[in-house]
Amino acid sequence: MNGHFITFEGGEGAGKTSILLSLSKRLSNLGYDVIATREPGGIEIAEQVRRIILDPLNTEMEERTEALLYAAARRQHLVEKVLPALNQGKIVLCDRFIDSSLAYQGYARGLGIDEVFAINQFAIQDCMPNLTLFFDIEPKKGLERIAANKDRERNRLDMEEIYFHEQVYKAYHILVERFPNRIQTINADQTIESVEKDAINRIVSYLSK
Amino acid sequence: MNGHFITFEGGEGAGKTSILLSLSKRLSNLGYDVIATREPGGIEIAEQVRRIILDPLNTEMEERTEALLYAAARRQHLVEKVLPALNQGKIVLCDRFIDSSLAYQGYARGLGIDEVFAINQFAIQDCMPNLTLFFDIEPKKGLERIAANKDRERNRLDMEEIYFHEQVYKAYHILVERFPNRIQTINADQTIESVEKDAINRIVSYLSK
Repeated sequence: MNGHFITFEGGEGAGKTSILLSLSKRLSNLGYDVIATREPGGIEIAEQVRRIILDPLNTEMEERTEALLYAAARRQHLVEKVLPALNQGKIVLCDRFIDSSLAYQGYARGLGIDEVFAINQFAIQDCMPNLTLFFDIEPKKGLERIAANKDRERNRLDMEEIYFHEQVYKAYHILVERFPNRIQTINADQTIESVEKDAINRIVSYLSK
Repeated sequence: MNGHFITFEGGEGAGKTSILLSLSKRLSNLGYDVIATREPGGIEIAEQVRRIILDPLNTEMEERTEALLYAAARRQHLVEKVLPALNQGKIVLCDRFIDSSLAYQGYARGLGIDEVFAINQFAIQDCMPNLTLFFDIEPKKGLERIAANKDRERNRLDMEEIYFHEQVYKAYHILVERFPNRIQTINADQTIESVEKDAINRIVSYLSK
């Protein structure tokens, strides 16, 4: 692997998705070979798995089943899209990865960070991100941002109760302490321009090491 | 859990599927409350996962993705069908369970028995079978039986090379050594009547303990 695997993490309304796309363009303009992706990333098998997870008719879906399905989709996306790009020396910017499962399923759903980490280790082997940016904003503020954005489609997670989002937020702070060398915290409670500037500086500084 | 969870394991052509159905009837006749099942067992989410695994168009399916999908389907079948029956005090006879994943994916596909065991532990928590019958027949003989049975539909695994089936066979013997208290070996290289008699004796003896 000659490339660089950079993941974007955070709760709802932290702005990471739009920042990822704009940073991808800016890094391209700076001459870097970069791809932007998110699970399931157009990978057919992973899309099929995703459809099962999101099917509103599947109300019987048990939490551990869901966590295993996410890990399966992650594996396939990694093998078909991320690893080939990394092997070609590209920078891969990925919207959510293992930390999302640790925060949402492991901590907020109560399955246990270590247990969810174990099945994800099986899925990704040792392919952990080189750098993870955590976009830090209090859940209440993040959700207010989403509410103000009328164009954004609501998904199942947006509608969870505030308590759930607070658990996710707490989980990310636990992960920051657990992986201090990999995860960098970005203050996402600023103007989008300032957050973007902060994020690009972190990435350029990482790349120039 | 007041019930009894009994799984049937073995390579192709060992006769376990037809013996399971006939034993289920005989145990019913003896007055036991028994259900016969196999993954995905008509559980909608598990059936959907199974369709992804078996879809012949999914040629890109990576081995670890497949192992995670099997574990997900197993979880859902366990939670929706097996555990409720066990909680009602029933005897559950299940055609294949965790040992199949350990033998086929863990050993024969080379993912590692311990690694595949770990993701299945996540899926089943501590709900291991109380008793497992391993139907022991040399792969060559088992495959000859299948070939002689014109009614039997061929599946993807029947068509694997003999080397693969030998690896599976080797794996089951490793599992028998590893779980001597749980797994009992039945000589399946006898007439179907003798195999059945042997199997029912083991089950009745286990139940009367």
